Amino acid sequence: MADQLADLRYDIALANRMLAHHGVLDAFGHVSARHPDDPQRYLLSRSRAPELVEPGDILEYTLDSKLVKESETPLYSERVIHGEIYKARPDVNCVVHHHSPDFMPLVITGIDYVPVFHLGAVGGAHVPFWDQREEFGDTNLLVVKPEEGASLARRLGQSWMVLMNRHGVTAAGTAVREAVFRCVFSCLNARFQVAAAAAGRVGPLSPGEVKHAFTISTGTTGQARSWELWVTQLTKAGSLPQSSPPRAAAPRSTVAQRKPRTPAKAAKR
Amino acid sequence: MADQLADLRYDIALANRMLAHHGVLDAFGHVSARHPDDPQRYLLSRSRAPELVEPGDILEYTLDSKLVKESETPLYSERVIHGEIYKARPDVNCVVHHHSPDFMPLVITGIDYVPVFHLGAVGGAHVPFWDQREEFGDTNLLVVKPEEGASLARRLGQSWMVLMNRHGVTAAGTAVREAVFRCVFSCLNARFQVAAAAAGRVGPLSPGEVKHAFTISTGTTGQARSWELWVTQLTKAGSLPQSSPPRAAAPRSTVAQRKPRTPAKAAKR
Amino acid sequence: MADQLADLRYDIALANRMLAHHGVLDAFGHVSARHPDDPQRYLLSRSRAPELVEPGDILEYTLDSKLVKESETPLYSERVIHGEIYKARPDVNCVVHHHSPDFMPLVITGIDYVPVFHLGAVGGAHVPFWDQREEFGDTNLLVVKPEEGASLARRLGQSWMVLMNRHGVTAAGTAVREAVFRCVFSCLNARFQVAAAAAGRVGPLSPGEVKHAFTISTGTTGQARSWELWVTQLTKAGSLPQSSPPRAAAPRSTVAQRKPRTPAKAAKR
Amino acid sequence: MADQLADLRYDIALANRMLAHHGVLDAFGHVSARHPDDPQRYLLSRSRAPELVEPGDILEYTLDSKLVKESETPLYSERVIHGEIYKARPDVNCVVHHHSPDFMPLVITGIDYVPVFHLGAVGGAHVPFWDQREEFGDTNLLVVKPEEGASLARRLGQSWMVLMNRHGVTAAGTAVREAVFRCVFSCLNARFQVAAAAAGRVGPLSPGEVKHAFTISTGTTGQARSWELWVTQLTKAGSLPQSSPPRAAAPRSTVAQRKPRTPAKAAKR
Repeated sequence: MADQLADLRYDIALANRMLAHHGVLDAFGHVSARHPDDPQRYLLSRSRAPELVEPGDILEYTLDSKLVKESETPLYSERVIHGEIYKARPDVNCVVHHHSPDFMPLVITGIDYVPVFHLGAVGGAHVPFWDQREEFGDTNLLVVKPEEGASLARRLGQSWMVLMNRHGVTAAGTAVREAVFRCVFSCLNARFQVAAAAAGRVGPLSPGEVKHAFTISTGTTGQARSWELWVTQLTKAGSLPQSSPPRAAAPRSTVAQRKPRTPAKAAKR
Repeated sequence: MADQLADLRYDIALANRMLAHHGVLDAFGHVSARHPDDPQRYLLSRSRAPELVEPGDILEYTLDSKLVKESETPLYSERVIHGEIYKARPDVNCVVHHHSPDFMPLVITGIDYVPVFHLGAVGGAHVPFWDQREEFGDTNLLVVKPEEGASLARRLGQSWMVLMNRHGVTAAGTAVREAVFRCVFSCLNARFQVAAAAAGRVGPLSPGEVKHAFTISTGTTGQARSWELWVTQLTKAGSLPQSSPPRAAAPRSTVAQRKPRTPAKAAKR
Repeated sequence: MADQLADLRYDIALANRMLAHHGVLDAFGHVSARHPDDPQRYLLSRSRAPELVEPGDILEYTLDSKLVKESETPLYSERVIHGEIYKARPDVNCVVHHHSPDFMPLVITGIDYVPVFHLGAVGGAHVPFWDQREEFGDTNLLVVKPEEGASLARRLGQSWMVLMNRHGVTAAGTAVREAVFRCVFSCLNARFQVAAAAAGRVGPLSPGEVKHAFTISTGTTGQARSWELWVTQLTKAGSLPQSSPPRAAAPRSTVAQRKPRTPAKAAKR
Repeated sequence: MADQLADLRYDIALANRMLAHHGVLDAFGHVSARHPDDPQRYLLSRSRAPELVEPGDILEYTLDSKLVKESETPLYSERVIHGEIYKARPDVNCVVHHHSPDFMPLVITGIDYVPVFHLGAVGGAHVPFWDQREEFGDTNLLVVKPEEGASLARRLGQSWMVLMNRHGVTAAGTAVREAVFRCVFSCLNARFQVAAAAAGRVGPLSPGEVKHAFTISTGTTGQARSWELWVTQLTKAGSLPQSSPPRAAAPRSTVAQRKPRTPAKAAKR
């Protein structure tokens, strides 16, 4: 139990750092996970740049996005994004909010995300658009109030990503590694979509192709292969968390995606 | 007193190096700050690439951009940009002049800067354009004469950034960390604006959104979070100044923006 | 004999890592080579990110893409790409499959690859397009079935590269170093072609220029010069395989392209 | 005398490595300098990737591009570019040939280089276009024959850069550091020009502005400031030549541009 929690904290820290390493996150954006022992709680770092998040920075919140243990430390102001999605979607165990440069041409212009290569199907069959202004008028665009988070979660619906006008993206997953995989390859797809549209007439995947490719993108050895690579890249960049990885290697929430443990474990050491 | 000055010199060196690390500055561009003890003086490096500036390179100038202590060392030719803005704007304590690649498509074509995501509001409600040619005819485009600097400062007016035709950008701030934050995120916004315009029809922030987002972009924990990240990135890149950071950690001019000192201090060591 | 095989395994590992270093490969894509002693077999890594491939990861397959020695280790699902091309093209000794970002604007829009500078002629006189959907309807776009691989090989015909709609590229070569050279410079050409088309009217090479430049691009000292550079770049990045390079330095399949051995050998050590 | 030559060899190696570090050169391209003691000779590396060039790789050629001392080592095939320009232009002491990605949209489409910011004036008042096909028909586009080099030199005329259709760029300078400075900032200008043209209507420098800015770009402290930066960047990247820098620090051919020697010398050590 304690090991599962320690493993998950470590994986959340890795996820933050991997997405920063890929340029999906910069000083802003955040990664959370549902608590492995209590589905009414989630885990999220204190206010800190993702590239620097340590397992020890990760705090427990109720689904109303209140700290379980009081603290004076500054918190992310947009944590309701996480809490409200966990409330609305019992199948979601990880949430990522980001402002990836790859998505900005879409969210600034209102162009829909379209899968343009097989890995772009990680975004799912439909990626909805949410505009804070429609319901809340002029704001600072941060999703701070519970009702703002709930509105975003409603727009997400049963999808796996939601675009946020003039702001960014929120992505969900059944596990941390799945959500990281989704973010990395949906960003690539967005980049390719924009570049291809500038070059000519985009020929997107058919609905049937999206369905087939979505299945395989979340069920093959691809996630394990990617995770091993990204851990190694963090290692080479001197960007692993300073604390040691926990004894147990496989947090519950990501067991489904992980087959070949040996390389990833070797890479972590 | 002496410690405040030493701290500020160190922060100016860091600011130069951070902006170089982000690609905002290359061999050219410079960062200055108003003297913490004498508002009629400002601090600016001798002629040196920003990535290499040490606290010991930073010299004191009068607001007429004359050296307080005579020296044979080569100086930046465009220092009147700094002096004339400090004369015209008592509320400004930091000035950055840069030729960021992100802004060049705007300043070469005369396209106005428009906030296209919440962090783009760091530029303020209005970003004016200045064309040296209008008032001074054919020059080498460098802002070298006092009257050229004064003309630029007039065009800046009460804004926080001014675009310079076929040249670059000058940004101001109430403190060093605020100005660095403004430069990094306004460059991101310019990049997104250009990319989005190529992809479709840009939907900019409304005036109300800009007002709200400007406030929060200069008043939240965002500056502290970013500064900690950027100091760590310099540390990992081997790009910190060679001299030790001064004893006192908090220069006066940036106190307002800094809450959680501990992480930033740890990162500096 | 054994040394030739060991050398080739090491070169395949280097090729994987070089192409990852250039951004041609990421977590996906793969490089194979025909077995130096048995043209009815080929060599390909187990399922692993190209940047991490070690000589010891490389397994032997029949041309039907079955493992010669049984193993439980996860394999690349698209290995029929390699086997079917080796069946159809006795002159091919190396196959690379990749999703380079440079090519995605072409494969998403159906724009033909056109040599736009002399080194772009590495792609040969004609680069055909293959669309899995035409023959196989809705799939997940992975080339997994033998008949899918055979269809791709037929479309490749006597060419050296084939574009794959909404997916990526497959390239072939008479030797590993030639194929790596082809991938690096065809990606550059694709990038330049897209950028130039956005800027104005592309003036491609004439058929006669392509013919002359193709010859020189596969026959000069250019390959040796590039290989030495890329080995050094891997060395500096800490990205060489962990195992020592084998004793013999020159695998048979690449002898033709290698003149000045000394620098490359020095760089390897 | 001997020291001047040693210094120049070292500077040529640095110039190669700096331009590779900036992405102006990759596996291809080369930098030469006129011999400091004999204007009828020039210095150029043996066939080697620019990023790897050592002072000891640099050989002496006659202006007919023949080796002064016979050698079996492979040579660059395009060395006549250098010899023929030195013949035609006694004021030129350094020649760079490159295929910078920044220039490819221009040389593939035939769009003229236009200074769009003050540092873009390093290219001079007029940058001519040369098309090998016009005079020589279908070739492999390499400038290998003396008459091809002479034709290119004629088209260069009294300018400082010449664009080569579907191939690249050749730049000249009165000294090594001036030529490096010209290449780095002309590439930036080309990048900005292409990006700006995609975004809107380019407002180039006026002829008077180009004249003023050209003068200052070759006569200020800018070259020294840049050289110090670029030497430091090579040092941090572990990319300095392996041989020690020679005792004398100031080769004759670059004396004019160098004022503050101390920082550059410090950075070299």
